[in-house]
Amino acid sequence: MSMVEDNEKWIEGGVAAPKGFYAVGVQAGIKVADKYDVALVFSQVQAHAAGVYTRNLVKAHPLYLTQRHLQNGRAQAIVINSGNANACVGESGDQAASAMAQIVAMYMAVPPEDVLVASTGVIGVEMPIDRVLTGIRAASAELLGTMVKSIREPKETSNDGAHRAALAIMTTDTTVKERACEFSCQGGMITLGGMAKGSGMIHPNMGTMLGFLTTDANVASEELQRILREAVDESFNMVTVDGDTSTNDMVLLLANGASGMTLSGEDLLYFEKMVKTMCIRLAQDIARDGEGASKFIEVTVAGAKTKGDAQKIAKSICGSSLVKTALFGEDANWGRIFTAAGYAGAEFDPAKVDILLGDLMVAQAGIGVAFSEEKAKEILSLKDVHISLNLNIGEEHAIAWGCDLTHEYVTINGSYRS
Amino acid sequence: MSMVEDNEKWIEGGVAAPKGFYAVGVQAGIKVADKYDVALVFSQVQAHAAGVYTRNLVKAHPLYLTQRHLQNGRAQAIVINSGNANACVGESGDQAASAMAQIVAMYMAVPPEDVLVASTGVIGVEMPIDRVLTGIRAASAELLGTMVKSIREPKETSNDGAHRAALAIMTTDTTVKERACEFSCQGGMITLGGMAKGSGMIHPNMGTMLGFLTTDANVASEELQRILREAVDESFNMVTVDGDTSTNDMVLLLANGASGMTLSGEDLLYFEKMVKTMCIRLAQDIARDGEGASKFIEVTVAGAKTKGDAQKIAKSICGSSLVKTALFGEDANWGRIFTAAGYAGAEFDPAKVDILLGDLMVAQAGIGVAFSEEKAKEILSLKDVHISLNLNIGEEHAIAWGCDLTHEYVTINGSYRS
Repeated sequence: MSMVEDNEKWIEGGVAAPKGFYAVGVQAGIKVADKYDVALVFSQVQAHAAGVYTRNLVKAHPLYLTQRHLQNGRAQAIVINSGNANACVGESGDQAASAMAQIVAMYMAVPPEDVLVASTGVIGVEMPIDRVLTGIRAASAELLGTMVKSIREPKETSNDGAHRAALAIMTTDTTVKERACEFSCQGGMITLGGMAKGSGMIHPNMGTMLGFLTTDANVASEELQRILREAVDESFNMVTVDGDTSTNDMVLLLANGASGMTLSGEDLLYFEKMVKTMCIRLAQDIARDGEGASKFIEVTVAGAKTKGDAQKIAKSICGSSLVKTALFGEDANWGRIFTAAGYAGAEFDPAKVDILLGDLMVAQAGIGVAFSEEKAKEILSLKDVHISLNLNIGEEHAIAWGCDLTHEYVTINGSYRS
Repeated sequence: MSMVEDNEKWIEGGVAAPKGFYAVGVQAGIKVADKYDVALVFSQVQAHAAGVYTRNLVKAHPLYLTQRHLQNGRAQAIVINSGNANACVGESGDQAASAMAQIVAMYMAVPPEDVLVASTGVIGVEMPIDRVLTGIRAASAELLGTMVKSIREPKETSNDGAHRAALAIMTTDTTVKERACEFSCQGGMITLGGMAKGSGMIHPNMGTMLGFLTTDANVASEELQRILREAVDESFNMVTVDGDTSTNDMVLLLANGASGMTLSGEDLLYFEKMVKTMCIRLAQDIARDGEGASKFIEVTVAGAKTKGDAQKIAKSICGSSLVKTALFGEDANWGRIFTAAGYAGAEFDPAKVDILLGDLMVAQAGIGVAFSEEKAKEILSLKDVHISLNLNIGEEHAIAWGCDLTHEYVTINGSYRS
């Protein structure tokens, strides 16, 4: 597979990098002035589509619409607004989500059922629907212009639209999260684009996690759904959000087939791997962008009996306030790591567990070992901290990502809504 | 039942308040100088005993010993040390716990199997066993002296010993948690004493939650175990600890029958209620004593289909970092409360939920209502904040307690071990 690895090339262009995809972001005035807050992603042709949604019992209004529109496994456009979650406002919320889809449908000349809608922002406040719709009109007009221009001058397309789209889905994010990658299959080149928003546990309700992926491969809807589900489980779902699953979380993947290639066999496996890689990179971007976070944390749990057990333990450690504050304080308090493993609800034998900070063994077979505090301090002073556990009872492993818990976190979240 | 309520009297004396119980605390030098760190609680006669333990898969060494010694439902002494958790140190940990029981047994002339052991402090560090045993010797000697003196001058017994015992089980606690209550049953007066340590989610591993209850009622071991289990479920287990269940958590109850009364029927029900009340008061003391905490939070969830559902939701809200920081910031961000309910894993219909801050309705039937921000600010500026949800689908309810998440919390936990 090493040849295949060399075939990957990370490029510019985000969600508009794959053939036949366009994206724009505009300022609609939902957030404060001079901020992008409406994004539109569009495929020249109807695409196969897949979606994964929050498991929170309380769901935002656009989620219901998007789930409904995705029942046939097809879509052509995604419209997203930030600044308002469109959640818990009653009937007017359903109407707002529906109006957003309809206005895109009208301007872009597609059926409303082919438009997917996502929102992120504060919960329980009515959408400023006039401003949202005005923004969507402007986005649609600009996108149509870009499409016309790109047909005339295919080489001239800029990445500016996709970048603005990635800006428009941000709330308190401090970094834009967009990625694109091309890789060669047996039949030729495939391109995969993506953008995301969210900042791990750091950003409350407005901290909704959204992810949008595009590709010019042709993959059947059912396959696409399975591939996305599995990729999300090992990426976005492994970013620890303190258990704080938002009402608006959503990840969508559109495959428009514009590359002319229908994937199967090894090509499909490779595509699957690349979707997972893309999701992991975006998930890591989210973990890194903890406002207030001073460190990026990666927890690897190996030697588990089941993948589920490994995932539970990795997430439990990543999500423990006590582990997070210890790492902020650069304190090699491995007892907290072991404790968080113990209450994860997973099966393991405490007497067999090895714990490492970076490459420094701090506990072996469940018992603390003498280690150099100086070396530990050095490892914990890095921006990226790696924690590894080997349960030594099986072959499965999992990785989770998160960040430390800092004073800044408390400041940000103590005064977010007001 | 109002007559019965009037029969309760909260008194001094902590765990030594019930007849036939003695307690002392000494300075053994496990913690820094001038701190009490070894406590001994003793009953003049063998008592019925019950215990509830941490569900963490990683358990401290004394837990195994105490569970073993409690298999016959009887005990006469409890020895506790703070400053070291005696956890994850291997065989020497089992030996240390065993030595602690043996030395008490020798001095107090009881079988080692009638001695229960509890520890709290840092994980993974060898017990300074010489100092611990020296401390226990001193405690035993003093306790024997107190017993002899109290037989000579029964009215002269001071509460000082029990108070020092309550001090000796503290780690980073800032307040002593001891309570005692007497109440009259049909046969006469019963006394119930208690002490606890812990500070909600605030204090990491050293933040182990310990509770010790004593009574001079005579209650059979199986009944006692059921009563304690149920009381703990609605008290200590409802203090939200961020899911951070320690390796050392333990609650013990000794009933020595020195009042001469064997409880049954209504008296037993009343005793049951008083044990629950005692546990709730101690649990609230723990929630209030969040180092760094600026507010005490009580979350009531009513109208649930099952008690389990109500408990899950109440704890989920109490444990949400986003709710906790919002309350620290005095921000009426009810969307975070609703979100935390949504991911609690309990059954409810979001469209039926009412949410109140204090007596101020902020959401009705799942939808935000217009409310006075001024009134909300006033409610949230209090030291005690009450949040209520009515799920409106059943008759069950539950209450959870916690505290806010502050800058102080991060400071304390960032530099605890070192």
